[in-house]
Amino acid sequence: MDQNELKKAVGTRSVDFIKSNMVVGLGTGSTVYYMIEELGKRYQAGDIKNIVAVTTSSRSEKQAKSLGIPTKDLNDIDHIDLTIDGADQIDKNYQGIKGGGAAHLLEKMVATNSTKNIWIVDQSKMADTLGSFPLPLEVIPFGCEKTFADLQKENLQPEFRLDDQGKRVLTHNKNYVIDLKMGEIKHPHLLADWLDHQVGIVAHGLFLNIVNTIIVGYEDGPKVIDNIR
Amino acid sequence: MDQNELKKAVGTRSVDFIKSNMVVGLGTGSTVYYMIEELGKRYQAGDIKNIVAVTTSSRSEKQAKSLGIPTKDLNDIDHIDLTIDGADQIDKNYQGIKGGGAAHLLEKMVATNSTKNIWIVDQSKMADTLGSFPLPLEVIPFGCEKTFADLQKENLQPEFRLDDQGKRVLTHNKNYVIDLKMGEIKHPHLLADWLDHQVGIVAHGLFLNIVNTIIVGYEDGPKVIDNIR
Repeated sequence: MDQNELKKAVGTRSVDFIKSNMVVGLGTGSTVYYMIEELGKRYQAGDIKNIVAVTTSSRSEKQAKSLGIPTKDLNDIDHIDLTIDGADQIDKNYQGIKGGGAAHLLEKMVATNSTKNIWIVDQSKMADTLGSFPLPLEVIPFGCEKTFADLQKENLQPEFRLDDQGKRVLTHNKNYVIDLKMGEIKHPHLLADWLDHQVGIVAHGLFLNIVNTIIVGYEDGPKVIDNIR
Repeated sequence: MDQNELKKAVGTRSVDFIKSNMVVGLGTGSTVYYMIEELGKRYQAGDIKNIVAVTTSSRSEKQAKSLGIPTKDLNDIDHIDLTIDGADQIDKNYQGIKGGGAAHLLEKMVATNSTKNIWIVDQSKMADTLGSFPLPLEVIPFGCEKTFADLQKENLQPEFRLDDQGKRVLTHNKNYVIDLKMGEIKHPHLLADWLDHQVGIVAHGLFLNIVNTIIVGYEDGPKVIDNIR
């Protein structure tokens, strides 16, 4: 199986966790794409009924709507029963990095407002420790050079994320993205705490103690890691 | 003296702390207005030379420019020597609340990048404990009803700030303002720490361990409280 087939198998498997009458959070990304496709099929077939989806990007919203899945804004629902999203890297303690798509602020809002979170990934995302995938931050433009300098002083290896034209990437909220290319994050909880206290940093991509179930795509099929917390 | 005269006396007095060749942070507000007026006078008279100002609002920037004071963006200077700003409330330990003008995120960026901070206030701003002045938060619109509900669950008495037309006030960064009308903040450090960790809250108005000097306007003249930290 190539990576896309692994992603499809994982995305499809994850839909087994979605039951009728749920409010479902839909993440973003290539694996999530396959999950939404499968959800659409089962919804249209009547196997899953009466669901509402909350999305973390216009792309996922468009896809859900095109399949007839009703969507609502996070502000217009009471709670989310289950969110299924990808992850950029997951360590052996099931802590994760997200934000490769620069949507980690909205994704974290949805995740922290969900009763259960499932991450769907191919095996390449699993690692002993976090950090070989750069850690994304969302920073306000005002004074961002000072924020950048503070990150340098802490040896956190910051780099502004640029688009194809070499311009700084803007998030949904018109902020910049700084990637921390540390190689290895030895103390994710300490780092998250420090980042939370920085004035110019709106969000970071460390998703700690959030995921409940991980579905990993291997050559011999998806493996479910359940009851994590 | 009426309140305006108190403010003018304090604003004028604070300019004594600005020396030639400094990079100066200029806050915003009615007391700061008088400070900038006096700074303009002394700059034009040549008593203070070669300064650069960093401002926290378009209003202060306009005022400084109209007086011929050169301004620069926070991103274009190395450091700020001294910032002079107002405060909405100051407690007996010299911790403060700012954000009545909804500019607390930019003000905190400037303050935390300044070697020294001076707050200029009239006596009505001094209190034993913080909290009778509502504590302003800046929150992202996405999922803000969930953020609001979380604040309610913690009994923090949240209220969205509305403008004259009853619409939600927008900050410089197009976020909403929620005021916490708690009456009394018994544990400002614990509250600040909790707020720092909330995903949807971009900034809060607790300015802790930041101010070095406070100048308070009393009937018998400005009183300088120096060497606070």
